[in-house]
Amino acid sequence: MAGNSILLAAVSVLSACQQSYFALQVGKARFKYKITPPAVFGSPEFERIFRAHQNCVEIYPIFIITLWTAGWYFNQVFATCLALVYMYARHQYFWGYSEAAKKRITGFRLSLGVLALLTVVGALGIANSFLDEYLDLNVAKKLRHF
Amino acid sequence: MAGNSILLAAVSVLSACQQSYFALQVGKARFKYKITPPAVFGSPEFERIFRAHQNCVEIYPIFIITLWTAGWYFNQVFATCLALVYMYARHQYFWGYSEAAKKRITGFRLSLGVLALLTVVGALGIANSFLDEYLDLNVAKKLRHF
Amino acid sequence: MAGNSILLAAVSVLSACQQSYFALQVGKARFKYKITPPAVFGSPEFERIFRAHQNCVEIYPIFIITLWTAGWYFNQVFATCLALVYMYARHQYFWGYSEAAKKRITGFRLSLGVLALLTVVGALGIANSFLDEYLDLNVAKKLRHF
Repeated sequence: MAGNSILLAAVSVLSACQQSYFALQVGKARFKYKITPPAVFGSPEFERIFRAHQNCVEIYPIFIITLWTAGWYFNQVFATCLALVYMYARHQYFWGYSEAAKKRITGFRLSLGVLALLTVVGALGIANSFLDEYLDLNVAKKLRHF
Repeated sequence: MAGNSILLAAVSVLSACQQSYFALQVGKARFKYKITPPAVFGSPEFERIFRAHQNCVEIYPIFIITLWTAGWYFNQVFATCLALVYMYARHQYFWGYSEAAKKRITGFRLSLGVLALLTVVGALGIANSFLDEYLDLNVAKKLRHF
Repeated sequence: MAGNSILLAAVSVLSACQQSYFALQVGKARFKYKITPPAVFGSPEFERIFRAHQNCVEIYPIFIITLWTAGWYFNQVFATCLALVYMYARHQYFWGYSEAAKKRITGFRLSLGVLALLTVVGALGIANSFLDEYLDLNVAKKLRHF
């Protein structure tokens, strides 16, 4: 378990660092645009950075769950590569959004695409393990056989 | 591990899809009520949908943690069934809230009840494993014996 | 796996209870300061409690990820102790913030310090496991040897 999760753990810590980095940018923006806590409104620039971070926070558990299921039940290396693409997409999204609301779209779409792919391969992997375990039917092996 | 977590993984992916679905509804409501990002205020209808999603986001990590501990340390099938009830309750909550603030109560209470139950059985399972491992005292076995 | 994660699972459930407790305080503050859902503004006291909770929610997945990686790849007992310090820091932060925005600083800094430490030891543990598995080089053993 610890062995076959090491890449997932590494990329999870990396993405946790990215989330912390985004949170830090919100803190910096508070200083720059003089938004004293607990306020979260008053400057469109700050609001964009704040919302960009919020969106990353909202979607983060979905990313972690689909990453680990895809890694455990489909393929660890593939899931890890997708996670790196996701992080790149979120980077694009965050900095795009902080410049203008419209510039968030590209990164947003890419990150959703990666999430969808992680979900699909995770679901396929789970379905295969399920059939294998409960019905003694290994689809992946049979496909390789053909 | 992978074997005895398969139902938990399946229901986690399912709940992640539900969370994505709620997020999508917020996006749709933005179009419908013409709330341009980064704004999150301006229409009571949108605000209700937005808050319903936020509440689901806030509570989601608590759900995932209690689900997996209940599944690992108590019983996987029982935890999975509770998770399905939780998802139903959140569905009720979300659509109730989107209609009127008062209509959120039923689903909210049910989802809290499920969370409390998951927490309790998870804690019992952990306590049992703990006693078993560190004090060599298997309470569950002794209970079955009586 | 189940055996060597038991303290992590226990402290995770405990921290999930703390998160629920914070959420409950926001609910109570809604009654006290008469902020009807879906509104989240209108009273500085409520807004502070609301933001304190939001901040705990934002950072919670980062805490859980770094806790489990530190526990799995470095040392479970050490990670669990750090998690208890983190929970204490968040308690300080939450109640400090609910009194005055300035009083949140001490708890906030302590919790960030704990998170940074969890991240560092988790990353070290992952790096060591990685070298051990892929390059057959066990740094921890060699250090103990010297």
